[in-house]
Amino acid sequence: MADVRLLSRAILAGERAALSRGISLVESRLTTQREAARMLLKHVLPQRSASASLRIGVSGPPGTGKSTLIEALGGVLLDRGHRLAVLAIDPSSHRTGGSVMGDKTRMPRLAADRRAYIRPSPSQGTLGGVARRTEEAALLCECGGYDRVIVETVGVGQSEVAVAGMTDMFVLLVPPSSGDGLQGIKRGIMEMADAVIVTKCDGQLEPAALSVARDLRAALKLFRPRLRSWRPSVMTSSSFDRESTLKVADLIEEFHATTKASGDLVRRREEQALRAIWDHACAEVLERLPSIHGVDELVRRYARESATGDTSPSLAADAIASYVLRSASHAPDVGQS
Amino acid sequence: MADVRLLSRAILAGERAALSRGISLVESRLTTQREAARMLLKHVLPQRSASASLRIGVSGPPGTGKSTLIEALGGVLLDRGHRLAVLAIDPSSHRTGGSVMGDKTRMPRLAADRRAYIRPSPSQGTLGGVARRTEEAALLCECGGYDRVIVETVGVGQSEVAVAGMTDMFVLLVPPSSGDGLQGIKRGIMEMADAVIVTKCDGQLEPAALSVARDLRAALKLFRPRLRSWRPSVMTSSSFDRESTLKVADLIEEFHATTKASGDLVRRREEQALRAIWDHACAEVLERLPSIHGVDELVRRYARESATGDTSPSLAADAIASYVLRSASHAPDVGQS
Repeated sequence: MADVRLLSRAILAGERAALSRGISLVESRLTTQREAARMLLKHVLPQRSASASLRIGVSGPPGTGKSTLIEALGGVLLDRGHRLAVLAIDPSSHRTGGSVMGDKTRMPRLAADRRAYIRPSPSQGTLGGVARRTEEAALLCECGGYDRVIVETVGVGQSEVAVAGMTDMFVLLVPPSSGDGLQGIKRGIMEMADAVIVTKCDGQLEPAALSVARDLRAALKLFRPRLRSWRPSVMTSSSFDRESTLKVADLIEEFHATTKASGDLVRRREEQALRAIWDHACAEVLERLPSIHGVDELVRRYARESATGDTSPSLAADAIASYVLRSASHAPDVGQS
Repeated sequence: MADVRLLSRAILAGERAALSRGISLVESRLTTQREAARMLLKHVLPQRSASASLRIGVSGPPGTGKSTLIEALGGVLLDRGHRLAVLAIDPSSHRTGGSVMGDKTRMPRLAADRRAYIRPSPSQGTLGGVARRTEEAALLCECGGYDRVIVETVGVGQSEVAVAGMTDMFVLLVPPSSGDGLQGIKRGIMEMADAVIVTKCDGQLEPAALSVARDLRAALKLFRPRLRSWRPSVMTSSSFDRESTLKVADLIEEFHATTKASGDLVRRREEQALRAIWDHACAEVLERLPSIHGVDELVRRYARESATGDTSPSLAADAIASYVLRSASHAPDVGQS
């Protein structure tokens, strides 16, 4: 555990190599590593300045120009004195054999900048597991002094929901398209957006982008705003137009200032934490079930009895649930190591 | 609870109305009803003759002729002195607004026969929940003296896996088709089959049915048999040909005799129970989590601390898992009421 203390000090001092080691630790699925990861988080978390940091979720279908926008936006954020980390959730990457996002070669300028930290997506496991580890990686980045963390995802399965559930501001990128541009947008995703950006608004695609933006503005009016102090808006952007990137950066900073002042930011974080804790706790409980003393033996005994007819899997399950769940009256201690 | 005792006696005496009431009880999701359902199962299960009964899973895509085959097969089983119950798992029925299976009008002769009992699919909830309730319904049917229970499903989602996981013999129905008939068979389903029946082997479709059967026989050789004492086979059947129905009935009885003698039947039931107990126990534990004393309050406290940065959802989840899981050294009592 002396190692973990050294590591946490190095992370808090802003050392990149230490941050990478720390993230590898929280991404590990080995039991011994998990324990070390817990210790690490307990050490560094109290030093984090939650109120100064902002997590931005960026989602959009492949080919929308996510990397291009993040590269440009990241440059502006760095110029304004922020430090930026870019993480990714890509539940598909274990199938395609490589992450398409967080790929350093797709953001060459950010990758070369010492004030930015780019980490490819953890590539194994269920969306729930990947989301949990990405969230811990984001926490470590914040502890390492990165006050702006972008979590990006390609719109696979429920990954936008996972990203929206762990970021302060959810930005949806939409490509320009001819015809009914709104048809390509996944159901349920618009209502999560704090900002919608129509990309590639230049050259031949400009009329299409402007038309999609118009449609999106009309559609957005149909949704109830998620926050009291913030009304989602639609912008267009072009990678050839630095002005539009500056406007995106302005919008993000405005979101931060507004929701922080109104209390919406803390409230949203609390709601997200509430849901995340339930989700993680359920996953954690299921993971630990088989290792609880006596459970495995009990399940086997009941299985034999079920086969011969003396009990049923259902009755056995009830009994096992009662066996493993305590109704203790003391609260556990999470804050301390 | 006096009611439950009366009900269980009536079920054991073979009263149909009591069986229906009992199944409604196990299908109920009300907490008070769940408790009564548990009591009921505890009362009736010890009286069940597991070794005499056989559960047959029947699966096939819509339009394969499941109802027709079950109607004909059921008639033969009744003629041979069995009592037959037909249940269904149809996770889609709550969406289509009505169960397509277990529908009494589709099996008019069985529905009119007092020796047969047909129950439509429970129409609400997740596949896991529906499967669990169907399994309990099957148990009650067995306690009511129905020694042959057919559990049918249309191939929606993972429903065949659910049916194969709760029946002694899994029978896959395949329609005849021109061209590559095997292309329409869902991946992973062939290896679960103890018997494959190509339906509608008559008239114009006979050549196609025979060709599909040939292809299936060749394909079946590629799979490792799931039981030591039983090698899956492929048959053809026609609703116009009583001989083919008799052969299906013979095959089922042969399966029962062979696997009972070899011990494969009990082994399979034990393995199925093992998996079912784990699945049900996990579901049960998750369901009970929020009602454990102190948990809700704890989650809220940790959510506040996570929002301000003092802990993380992940650390909080670990603590909650430790809080709710006991490592008791005494075994619970499932057998008694």
